[in-house]
Parts: sequence; structure tokens; C-alpha cells
Amino acid sequence: MSVSVCAERPCSIASEKGIKLSTSYLHWRVTMKVFYYLLPACNGEITTMSFLQDIVDILLQYVVKSFDRTTKVIDFHYPNELLQEYNWELADQPQTLEEILLNCRTTLKYAIKTGHPRYFNQLSTGLDMVGLAADWLTSAANTNMFTYEIAPVFVLLEYVTLRKMREMVGWPGGCGDGIFSPGGAISNMYAMLIARFKMFPEVKEKGMAAIPRLVAFTSEHSHFSVKKGAAALGIGTDSVILIRCDERGKMIPSDLERRILEAKQKGFVPFLVSATAGTTVYGAFDPLIAIADICKKYKIWMHVDGAWGGGLLMSRKHKWKLNGVERANSVTWNPHKMMGVPLQCSALLVREEGLMQSCNQMHASYLFQQDKHYDLSYDTGDKALQCGRHVDVFKLWLMWRAKGTTGFEAQIDKCLELAEYLYNKIKNREGYEMVFDGKPQHTNVCFWYIPPSLRSMEDNEERMSRLMKVAPVIKARMMEYGTTMVSYQPLGDKVNFFRMVISNPAATHQDIDFLIDEIERLGQDL
Amino acid sequence: MSVSVCAERPCSIASEKGIKLSTSYLHWRVTMKVFYYLLPACNGEITTMSFLQDIVDILLQYVVKSFDRTTKVIDFHYPNELLQEYNWELADQPQTLEEILLNCRTTLKYAIKTGHPRYFNQLSTGLDMVGLAADWLTSAANTNMFTYEIAPVFVLLEYVTLRKMREMVGWPGGCGDGIFSPGGAISNMYAMLIARFKMFPEVKEKGMAAIPRLVAFTSEHSHFSVKKGAAALGIGTDSVILIRCDERGKMIPSDLERRILEAKQKGFVPFLVSATAGTTVYGAFDPLIAIADICKKYKIWMHVDGAWGGGLLMSRKHKWKLNGVERANSVTWNPHKMMGVPLQCSALLVREEGLMQSCNQMHASYLFQQDKHYDLSYDTGDKALQCGRHVDVFKLWLMWRAKGTTGFEAQIDKCLELAEYLYNKIKNREGYEMVFDGKPQHTNVCFWYIPPSLRSMEDNEERMSRLMKVAPVIKARMMEYGTTMVSYQPLGDKVNFFRMVISNPAATHQDIDFLIDEIERLGQDL
Repeated sequence: MSVSVCAERPCSIASEKGIKLSTSYLHWRVTMKVFYYLLPACNGEITTMSFLQDIVDILLQYVVKSFDRTTKVIDFHYPNELLQEYNWELADQPQTLEEILLNCRTTLKYAIKTGHPRYFNQLSTGLDMVGLAADWLTSAANTNMFTYEIAPVFVLLEYVTLRKMREMVGWPGGCGDGIFSPGGAISNMYAMLIARFKMFPEVKEKGMAAIPRLVAFTSEHSHFSVKKGAAALGIGTDSVILIRCDERGKMIPSDLERRILEAKQKGFVPFLVSATAGTTVYGAFDPLIAIADICKKYKIWMHVDGAWGGGLLMSRKHKWKLNGVERANSVTWNPHKMMGVPLQCSALLVREEGLMQSCNQMHASYLFQQDKHYDLSYDTGDKALQCGRHVDVFKLWLMWRAKGTTGFEAQIDKCLELAEYLYNKIKNREGYEMVFDGKPQHTNVCFWYIPPSLRSMEDNEERMSRLMKVAPVIKARMMEYGTTMVSYQPLGDKVNFFRMVISNPAATHQDIDFLIDEIERLGQDL
Repeated sequence: MSVSVCAERPCSIASEKGIKLSTSYLHWRVTMKVFYYLLPACNGEITTMSFLQDIVDILLQYVVKSFDRTTKVIDFHYPNELLQEYNWELADQPQTLEEILLNCRTTLKYAIKTGHPRYFNQLSTGLDMVGLAADWLTSAANTNMFTYEIAPVFVLLEYVTLRKMREMVGWPGGCGDGIFSPGGAISNMYAMLIARFKMFPEVKEKGMAAIPRLVAFTSEHSHFSVKKGAAALGIGTDSVILIRCDERGKMIPSDLERRILEAKQKGFVPFLVSATAGTTVYGAFDPLIAIADICKKYKIWMHVDGAWGGGLLMSRKHKWKLNGVERANSVTWNPHKMMGVPLQCSALLVREEGLMQSCNQMHASYLFQQDKHYDLSYDTGDKALQCGRHVDVFKLWLMWRAKGTTGFEAQIDKCLELAEYLYNKIKNREGYEMVFDGKPQHTNVCFWYIPPSLRSMEDNEERMSRLMKVAPVIKARMMEYGTTMVSYQPLGDKVNFFRMVISNPAATHQDIDFLIDEIERLGQDL
């Protein structure tokens, strides 16, 4: 069997090469129904390869455009416009191959170019080419992580990669346990689930009714998934006690200890402290060593939510910000954020081996047969909350091979350097106020843009209520022009401010300059 | 900007076309480090497109081989062999482009060809070409489902697709709610979470301590995820009451009612019945109408786990097996199973709109800003348990466009017809015993192969203990030869039997014949 794609296909490449195709063949291509001619249809190879090659041409064009600063980040349309502009409905009858290609082009036309160097909107930005290739391979392999039987290589790569990540956390020899889960929120939920089980294993069979009232602690700047997990796990959001932060958004250890004692006095059982390494808005790193001391003193499970900040472990220059993480019982680390791995790729690392398995296993005999012919310790599916589990590891593994740890380090250091450049540029610039003082610890730079009309106003309620509206209007204009995107939000008593984050190695100093110019262009009349 | 891939690239296609490339360029290609030359690197377009095209060539070859019956389903190696045969470790330094391509080839060499027409091992088999294309596009778009802001098209497609699925369930006008979740286990967990919240909304803040002892009901043949969910949600596995099944694996409604009354008498509060439409092993459909009557009578949330059987709603010939599903409060339906959508694609459908949102929302102000410039009802992220959520809808949506409902119907009908062919072929064949009598309702065909040495033995313990070993040995041999794969398991007092399932439209009558011949070839000496 030989695979020769171009020779028979009437695609752009063929015509570039001057290959002439018969009109009847082209007509057949246009009108045929996809369903009947692609693999597994008999003799479907050529049509299939031609079709997939057409798709790849569309995608390559999109990828190249994503990095082109002369194209828009987004061609924004309101939901009702998008619904009207195109027929997205599902019908009884099949479409033609050409219609399917058109669907793909249309979908990409209105998509956000998340790899664009001026897309700063989320913690996950950028588009890594090796990661993309790995994701394409993952799709073609189309398998499930529950057993070695059906995912031999991926199961081994998960083993190798998780061990390496635990090494970087600082656990001797990379020992411990872990899993790739569908996102940081689920990883954090795993940590809570395992911490509860460790303290009260009977909860698995008997439920919360059989155990004392639990309480968990996390900072007021922590991610909302801690509360979401507590709600789901039957612990209740009221049992998540929010610890005060300093002005930089770091948990105050003395407040943590005070609240632990208070809870114990009320008869509650503290079972988890979720510290944050890289908060969502400020990019703050909680003081992990002090928190570890407190957790040790009161025998509480220490979880570190490093979904955003975990990537800094790859950088010799910045990893000190996570000092103490090696004392955690569990760590969330999302390579799909700071390391630029395509979505989704989130790891939950656990120091004690075997606990996840005891906590979650249900011994389904149709999957985890005990009389298989290979080493069953590689059937890792029963430690998951999920049954089927998507292969998320390959992207990270292949990127790591391609860049090496030093490559990740270089790209992370570059993003942090850009954040510092932005901070230095605006900290004393007219029309800017920083939300908190001092150099950013992560790539989060939080600031207000003050339009000229507000600059000489007194700091009163009217100013606040006008300032509150500035960021949303600028953001809406950014999206309508499609030139750049950056997030904003209120926080506590602080009205809407911009939260700039940089996780895309495609960004440059010029892109930071552009962002500032654009904010001023779009906001000066407000 | 123009995208002309082939012209400059030294890949197989170029050489097929007789394009000559300079030796120095080729040498540069071989030795360069990926990291420094691919996009977003300056002038990285050509290298990137060449690299991605090389990957696509590797993948196309794999795809075509997957459907080729002369290639193995699997090139089996034991875990320690695979670990020794190749260096999978992660290092400080980057690899070259050629090494990355080799990594990909090696990964695929040892992968299971899940699209192979003789791979019958799991409920998710096959490799759909439009689904694959759609997954590649999803990877290139690399975004997150939480807001319209960053996934405008995908959010609308989720809306359109979920509404269509609810229509097929039979809810008037497709009204209701839903979400694509990371697999059936999580979809079932959502149902349990929402059912609990509907009855006791205070559980969100106060936890299980504030509400009565709950009990859930599901059949003894149901999927283990119901228990897994109960363990995670703090309900406890002891509070999942397993209802007896008839000999076909269908829940017995009278036993359900009896156990509900019993639980109520003990002071427990029944809050959920999880009926199964298509059990994992037998493929049984619980009697949904009778179960709906009982749920109505006792005011209990009725969930239907149609992860496996939901696909039959696409078939006019088979959808009667789910009669009564329209009375459910929630339905799990995994298009990645019977509909052949690439992994992962699982939907949870909920009849009451808004409940998911109230149950799960945490109002994170950094994501779900209330002063955005578009209709906020499209920011659906806060109804999820996850924060970031992978785009799973596009594969299903594009496949639906390509096949139409009638295309899905044809492919599902074909798989069911094949299962019936297998059943008819072996029900009276020498050396086979069916695990249950009667025509299969789904594509599950459960049977023992009885080797000649056991055929004349009395039905005693020794026979049982020898029969128990037959399926595992045949399966191990199948994997070592790599010719086919089918699952086996014990169930209750029944020793290991084969569970044949067909969800791959690539399979034919000849593949069924091949499976039977292969079982006999590999098992006759046992």
C-alpha cells in the first residue's frame, strides 16, 4: 500500500503544479455526498486523502494567519448576527464535500485567533506547532486512557511525564501519583476528594453523613473552582473559608492559622488548605513555606493550585516563587496555560502513591480484568473519576521532547520579561494607575487606564462609577476593531481594571507597545 | 499572504514529483532544532508548513492502514519491552525536527488501530474521516468553551446541537438545557448533582450535613460510574441501591418500587433513579416507561444513562427501544460511542432549563463580567463543573452536517444488523453458548466459546474453572497475533465470556466471519 496524496487530487497544490484535472472529476467532487465516498467506504483512500489534504490546506492558512499581525484577532459578530448570517442547523440529509469544506472555512472565519501575538485575553494563549501536530496525531489515534490494552504508548508516556513533573515539583525521584484531568477545576476537585478520603476513608461507602463537618481553607484571591468542588462534593461552599490576602494578593498565614483554630473551636474538622501558586487575577504566589508549616502543625492536607503558576517550575530564574511546593500533598499544574500546550492539558500530582486508586476505584470487571496477560499496574483508569479519558499527555510530551526543559524555560522567561517591560512602561505613565504596587511576580499586570476626562477629578464615587465603565467600553471597542484582546474585571472594592497576562511566546515588545497605544486610542474620549 | 506548501518542501510528495532539493537544505532540516525555526519564530512559515505537512503524511498513512485488513490491529509489546525498546524520557535539551517525526512514527507503530474493521474491543471504535478533520480544526482553533467572547462559533454550535439532541429525545421544541462533558461518567455525575440540588438546593452552600440521607437507585447491570459519582458527591456508594435485572439485564420495575418503599421506610430520601439505555455488557435497555411511572409516583428524578444506547435515537427502526426516554429529567448520550464521533464527545441533556446554572454557578467576575457588550446568555461556562472546557461539539456537528441524520441512521442500522448476523451465526453453532437467550437489542452479543475438550464435560465446577480461562487466553493470543480484539469479562455468577460489540461502520459480514474463525483457531487446543 502506498500513500501518494497529491498525484490524484484536484486541490490547490495540484493546480499550482499545473496538473490538469478533468471537468467531470471536478464536478463529481463538488456534488458528491461525503458520507458515501470517504473511508471506510470501499476505495475511499483517494477521496479521503484529498479531503483531509483540503482540510489541512485550510488549517495551514489559518495557522499562518494567526501569527500575522496584519490580520484581525477576531472578526466580531453579535450572537444574533452570527445565527442569521449563516445556516448552522442540522438536517436529515447529508451535505456535499464542498459544503463541509465551506463549513470549516466559515467556522474559522469567525473564530478567535488564540495564537495571535496580540491576543492576551486568557491564561491560555498561543498556538504551539509541535503541540498542534501532537494533537492531530492524538485525534488520529482516537483512543482512551483507561487501559494499557488500548493505549499502550500513551499510558507509558503519561507515566514518564507525570514522574518528570513530580521531579520538578521536588518530590524525591519523582515518586508519587497523578493523572491528567479535564482542566484545573477538576484537578482541584480531585485534590479535595483525595484529601477527604485520606482523613476519612469511610466517606467513600458511607458518604458525608458518616463523618464530621469538614472545612477547607483557601485565599480570597483563589480560583472559584475550590468552591465549585466543595459544592459538588457535598461539603458545601459555606465550608470553604476564605483567608485574607495582603495587598499583593498573597494569603496571610497568620489569618490562616487564626481561622483554623476558630473552626476547630466550633467543632469543625479542617481537612484541606488550598494554596495558590499564581492567582488568576493578580498572579500572586501564596507563601508556601509558611503555609506548609501550618498544615504540618495541624495535620491538614496541603494542596497547591499551581494551574497558572506551575509552569514557573521550568525556569531556574523564577521557580523560587514556588519554594515550599515540595511540601505539598498535591499539586495542580496546567501545562495548557503557561507552557502553551494546546487545550486541554492539566495534571494533578499527588505525593502519596496508591491513594487515588483506593479513593476512586470501583473494580469494573469489564475493563480491569484481573486475568490479563500483562502487568496490570499499567491499567490506570480506575484511579480516575472518569471512565473514558481523553489522551491529553501526548501534546505535552512531544513539546517537551521538541523544546527540552530549556526551551520551555526560555519561552517562560521571555513572557515574564515582557510583563516586566509592560510594568516598567506604565507604572509612571500618565493616565495609568497600578492596581497593586511592585514588580509583577507572574505575567499578570493589573492596571486602570484613566481617560483624560477623569485625570483631574477628585477620588470620589462619581469618579469610581465612571472609571468602572472605562475598561468594558475599551474592551468592546477592541473586539469590534478586532485589533487586540485583554481581560478586565472588578475585584473586591476595586472597580473594573485591566488584567494583562502573557503566555504566548509569539508576543514581542512591539505588541506590548501596540496594546498600550490601542488602549489610549480607544479610551481617550471616555 | 499566500500559502503554497509543496513548492518549497523536501517531503515525500516533493520527491515523488521529482522536485530536487539541495543537499545543504536537507542537511539543515535534519539537524536543526524544532523550537527555533517553527512559528512563531520569525520567517517560520515555510518550515512550519513543511513540518505539519510531514506530520500529515505520517497520519494519512496511518489512517489508510487503519482500514486495511492486511495490517495488524496491534503490534503488541509488553510494558517493559516498550519501555526498553525506545527512549521515551524527557530531557533538558531539544530534539531535532527529524527526531520529532520519528517520535510520531514510533508512537503510531505501537498504537492500537482503533479504526481497524476488526477492532471490537470497546464501545468506541472506528475512525470517522469528517470527525477527524473536525478534530484537527478544533486543535487549530485551540480555544475554550466558557464564554461566547472566546468561542463564538463553538458556543452557538453547542446550542444548536444540544437543542437538536433534545428534540430527538422527544422534549417539545428541543427545550431544556445541557452540556458536553468529558465523558459519560462525568455526565452521569452531573445528573446526580443536579437531581440532588433540585430536591435540596441548600446542599450547595450547606453540604450534605444539612440535608437528609439520600439514596439513588440503578440496576445491577448499570455502569460503575453511578457508584463513582455517589462516592465523589459525598453520598456514598452504600446509598446506591442496585435493583435486580431480568435474565436479559433489564431492570425489574417491581424490584425498583419495592426498594424505594424499603428505603423510605428506613427514613432515607430517594432522589434519583438512573435507568440504563444500553448496558455496558449485555446492551440491555431498561423498561423506561415503567420506570418513569414509578419515578412520577414517588417524585424522584429520572435519569437515563444512554451513553451507549442513546445513538439508537437516530434510527427509525430501533429508537422504540428507548420509548419513555422523553419522560426523563436528564439523559446521558455519548456520540463518541454508537455514533462514531472521535473521543471525547459526551452530552448531558437536562429537561429543566436553568437548573444547571443555579446548581453550579459561582459568578467568577474575571470570566463572566456582567457589563459585556453582547447577550450574556451565551456565556455558558458557569453551568459547568469545569472552568476551562474542551471544544467537543465541533466533531459531532460537522459529522452531522456531512451525514445528515439519515447517514447516522444508516451506519447505526448497519452495526445492529451485523450484530444480528453474528447472533444468528453462533446461536446454534457447535462450540458456542449464548450468555442470554434471544436476539440482541443493541450490538452486544455475549457468548462463551467452548473448546472441544470441554464440550462433552459435565456442567460442574471443574468445567467452570476451565471455561473461565478460555476467553483470557484467546484474547491474549489475539493481541499477540494482532489480528483482532474483542472484550471479555465475568458478570455475577457467570465466568469469563466474550462481549462482542460493533460500533464501527467499517466492519462487514466478512469481519464477523473472521472473528469467529479466529476464536476457533486460537481456542481449539484449550
